[in-house]
Amino acid sequence: MNANTQNFLRERAQVDQAARQPFPNSRKIYLQGSRADIRVPMREISLSPTTGSFGNEENEPLRVYDTSGPYTDPQVSIDVRKGLYPQRHLWIEERADTDILPQLSSEYGRQREADISLEPLRFDLQRKPRRAQAGKNVTQMHYARQGIITPEMEYVAIRENMKIAQMREQVQLNQQHPGHSFGAAIPQEITPEFVRAEIARGRAVLPANINHPEIEPMIIGRNFLTKINGNIGNSALGSSIEEEVAKMTWGIRWGADTIMDLSTGKNIHETREWIIRNSPVPVGTVPIYQALEKVNGIAEDLTWEIFRDTLIEQAEQGVDYFTIHAGVRLAYVPLTAKRMTGIVSRGGSIMAKWCLAHHQESFLYTHFAEICDIMKAYDVTFSLGDGLRPGSVYDANDQAQFAELETLGELTKIAWQHDVQCFIEGPGHVPMHMIKENMDKQLQECGEAPFYTLGPLVTDIAPGYDHITSGIGAAMIGWYGCAMLCYVTPKEHLGLPNKDDVKTGIITYKIAAHAADLAKGHPAAQVRDNAMSKARFEFRWEDQFNIGLDPDTARAYHDETLPKESAKVAHFCSMCGPKFCSMKISQEVRDLDADQVAAIQAQAEQGMQEKSQEFLAQGSKLYQKI
Amino acid sequence: MNANTQNFLRERAQVDQAARQPFPNSRKIYLQGSRADIRVPMREISLSPTTGSFGNEENEPLRVYDTSGPYTDPQVSIDVRKGLYPQRHLWIEERADTDILPQLSSEYGRQREADISLEPLRFDLQRKPRRAQAGKNVTQMHYARQGIITPEMEYVAIRENMKIAQMREQVQLNQQHPGHSFGAAIPQEITPEFVRAEIARGRAVLPANINHPEIEPMIIGRNFLTKINGNIGNSALGSSIEEEVAKMTWGIRWGADTIMDLSTGKNIHETREWIIRNSPVPVGTVPIYQALEKVNGIAEDLTWEIFRDTLIEQAEQGVDYFTIHAGVRLAYVPLTAKRMTGIVSRGGSIMAKWCLAHHQESFLYTHFAEICDIMKAYDVTFSLGDGLRPGSVYDANDQAQFAELETLGELTKIAWQHDVQCFIEGPGHVPMHMIKENMDKQLQECGEAPFYTLGPLVTDIAPGYDHITSGIGAAMIGWYGCAMLCYVTPKEHLGLPNKDDVKTGIITYKIAAHAADLAKGHPAAQVRDNAMSKARFEFRWEDQFNIGLDPDTARAYHDETLPKESAKVAHFCSMCGPKFCSMKISQEVRDLDADQVAAIQAQAEQGMQEKSQEFLAQGSKLYQKI
Repeated sequence: MNANTQNFLRERAQVDQAARQPFPNSRKIYLQGSRADIRVPMREISLSPTTGSFGNEENEPLRVYDTSGPYTDPQVSIDVRKGLYPQRHLWIEERADTDILPQLSSEYGRQREADISLEPLRFDLQRKPRRAQAGKNVTQMHYARQGIITPEMEYVAIRENMKIAQMREQVQLNQQHPGHSFGAAIPQEITPEFVRAEIARGRAVLPANINHPEIEPMIIGRNFLTKINGNIGNSALGSSIEEEVAKMTWGIRWGADTIMDLSTGKNIHETREWIIRNSPVPVGTVPIYQALEKVNGIAEDLTWEIFRDTLIEQAEQGVDYFTIHAGVRLAYVPLTAKRMTGIVSRGGSIMAKWCLAHHQESFLYTHFAEICDIMKAYDVTFSLGDGLRPGSVYDANDQAQFAELETLGELTKIAWQHDVQCFIEGPGHVPMHMIKENMDKQLQECGEAPFYTLGPLVTDIAPGYDHITSGIGAAMIGWYGCAMLCYVTPKEHLGLPNKDDVKTGIITYKIAAHAADLAKGHPAAQVRDNAMSKARFEFRWEDQFNIGLDPDTARAYHDETLPKESAKVAHFCSMCGPKFCSMKISQEVRDLDADQVAAIQAQAEQGMQEKSQEFLAQGSKLYQKI
Repeated sequence: MNANTQNFLRERAQVDQAARQPFPNSRKIYLQGSRADIRVPMREISLSPTTGSFGNEENEPLRVYDTSGPYTDPQVSIDVRKGLYPQRHLWIEERADTDILPQLSSEYGRQREADISLEPLRFDLQRKPRRAQAGKNVTQMHYARQGIITPEMEYVAIRENMKIAQMREQVQLNQQHPGHSFGAAIPQEITPEFVRAEIARGRAVLPANINHPEIEPMIIGRNFLTKINGNIGNSALGSSIEEEVAKMTWGIRWGADTIMDLSTGKNIHETREWIIRNSPVPVGTVPIYQALEKVNGIAEDLTWEIFRDTLIEQAEQGVDYFTIHAGVRLAYVPLTAKRMTGIVSRGGSIMAKWCLAHHQESFLYTHFAEICDIMKAYDVTFSLGDGLRPGSVYDANDQAQFAELETLGELTKIAWQHDVQCFIEGPGHVPMHMIKENMDKQLQECGEAPFYTLGPLVTDIAPGYDHITSGIGAAMIGWYGCAMLCYVTPKEHLGLPNKDDVKTGIITYKIAAHAADLAKGHPAAQVRDNAMSKARFEFRWEDQFNIGLDPDTARAYHDETLPKESAKVAHFCSMCGPKFCSMKISQEVRDLDADQVAAIQAQAEQGMQEKSQEFLAQGSKLYQKI
């Protein structure tokens, strides 16, 4: 695959057509906010009417949260060489607290820019980078704490508040079970003011780098819809820039709310630029990965200066959040010695190596305040990395893991003192009965800052199926209060995910996130389940496919057994076949009138009395007989 | 596929070779009980030694619970036309409480036997059926209550008690987290007496029809390893006898503890005979399905006589447990009228239809005591069906569902009065936060009789992925105390599962069951995770593949990225590549000596004090600045 890296040429770069296919029976709609340029995208799925023995009624179209960006809007023409339209540009301008820089501030950024050999594969960005004016703080948290509701905040309020959109539907479809939220504060209606208040107190983050104006704003917090992240990125062993952009567009098509670019291979800087310019979702990175490449993979050669330059380099490209493993402190490293699997976090082990080699406290920890100053100059959000997360069930919830979590709590407070947005990364491998302790301790130590976990995997014994072992833990911790779930693909522990693996990982995590929203009682959650169940009961096959998370697979599976088009309107399925059908009988029950029901109950009443006596008699009798 | 049904010929019947492949680096071993003919099979996986920077030591072979039967023993020659060796034959004989019948007792059985046209596809069984002598009760529960430990009970004690087998391994590998078992009574050592006591009080069942001497006994109860069931069976729309036998051997290869034959298509009686004669695991059925076929699919034409004859027909073939929907009472039918998805259980809707048509109480309920008399004459175990289980998240935990559960509790007590083994079926579709209520109510209403649930599915919106939506719920309810999990395949709601779907469903449910065993603290659970994690940490790739639930898939995924054989001994993986590896650094941490650690801590101590003061200073300073 390295070949592709060499062969990649800007002129030839094209969007992956798979990402542009419209979803069946769906159209992209935009909800208008308080100003013309606040246009919040949603996918509207039109449903067929109820017919036959099930009655006759229209079924209102279903609106679903849509992360796929302009790619699924046939009205928008896409050219990956130009990137997406920078819809936040004006909002940032209007705040008048940023400067347009004459040139890139980072030394490395300028080096790459000056390198002619990179011309053919460099994204052709005309725009200059932006930075906060001297002494200014341009974070959404800072605005929120000033009482300002930004357009970004109003945008996410409309986006989260699916309920309004659903109100027009039948009453039954709006009903849902009250959730059990473990002390979350989920309102019945998501207002812009609620969004502001949650960001102000640090309980939610709105990752939106001023150099990433292309994003469709989204929010991460326990009182909002549970989000998922998809990881992409090349490695020393392969993948090209175009492949990575295609993985991104493929990931958001199926529901990734954010994308992390974990590239460690060739042309990391240029690859990232292409991804960000074409990504409508926030992009996260682990800057230490690139810093390590800059010192040829020798951890002990890392310096604060190289890392600092890397932060600025990436911040000016528009990375929305940085994973920073500042909680891996020198004193915690020996705590991992007795572990079954030691340190499995790449960033964590890099810093452990550095601390041991220099016999010093981590420079990420000692320079944390300076890092905050960089973050607030671009509004990059912290994703405080869990460098000591357990890599096996055996190591779950151990001293090393929790010592680091306490330090992450300490650092969260510092970030908040700087009005810098912050969320916290979590494990890892944890058996089911030990998951809640992780969530509870994180909420307590980090003052309810959003938690962002990898799984957790609830067992170690199923390589090839770790999207499932982790999806179980992800659903549970999402219910307990985790705000974002980092997907795991079937290739975890084994190899690099391809596009199919990305899709499988994303769908699995959409399931986990939605299950969590149902359980914690998000007011907009159950309407989709209800719409599916009604379609299922009424044998509206096309609607069942289209309402589902993956219409293509659902249709393909159905057609394996009943390929004929006629079967898609048939009032039976392949499980029971045409002769006998349980759903039909349920319809007859519905058709019972009041008198019939009364008669049944009377009849049953009497029957019950007789039988219960009979039973006791028989029971004891027979018991003696034996 | 119907063609196959016609084309099937006994002479040509062959075992599916896929089921006979040996597992990599594994051998079948037998643990000997108190008598020569108690030989309990296990799979022993041999592991490669630890080498290089990770030290030098042998790794003890790992023993795992093995459901695959004689098919994976190269010493055993298999002929599906002859069936498996009836290893329980002598045990049953010795009890001298059964008669060998001159002929089949059921009218339908005799009809089929007399039908010449069925000759070519009939299994050629020489053996005559057995039944309890007049007035005798041949259930394992009855023996247990007499204080008798049967060979079957000793067999399962050895089989469950993996711990002994593991004791020889390194200490670290035996350590595991204490579980949280919600009031279960899981001992540190499974003894034959414990097995007897659990069966006697109804908290566990050992399904073992006297006419199914071919089984390798297993036990189902909350204080034992969590079990899973795989459903097979043809339908009106296709599949042949040979395909169904192949699905069974394929299912048990990957871990199905029991198999349910849900056939509703052609030659149900003959198909079942082939499955049972070749199945080393207990076989369950839903007799009402066949009874319905006997009245051409017209539910109202069903009678107690037809149903009774079907029970005897199947009991004499050797079915080990019957799903009987005796809890669907006339009075409960109207309770389903307001549901989103009505009655989705096929058996439940058949009985609802019958009750409505005749305006009478269900004959399954009114004849329950007579059913018990049949069950105890063959030791068929009750699986009391949940005919009113919710078919959607919307309908979860409603009045109809719980009214039926209360009746199932009442029927459980009756079954126990007859010393008939009994477990209870459960939902269905239930959001995460409402699952525990199901488990708690079942334990309470049914006096801790084993619970056997389908999923539950925690959301309705992912057709094509319902093995995952249900695997999440299955893992949780298994933790809460559910004894057996009925698998769901990716084809659920869409079509008929093929062999791939069966495997995916089984592996997903093995994950759920094992995750539950870890969480509830089964003493034999974590050793496999530990062995996997140690192999992972030490880059023993072959061992990682072989210890996993699906070695073939794990190896294939690894080879997609790193196909070379050399990569399987390489001390790196495709995620980080060769240059930097986190695992290596962990090894360096382990190599630190005491002095080094002491020095680090001293150094860190000091650093911490300085920094924390610095932070506070900076923090407040910076905060004012803004």
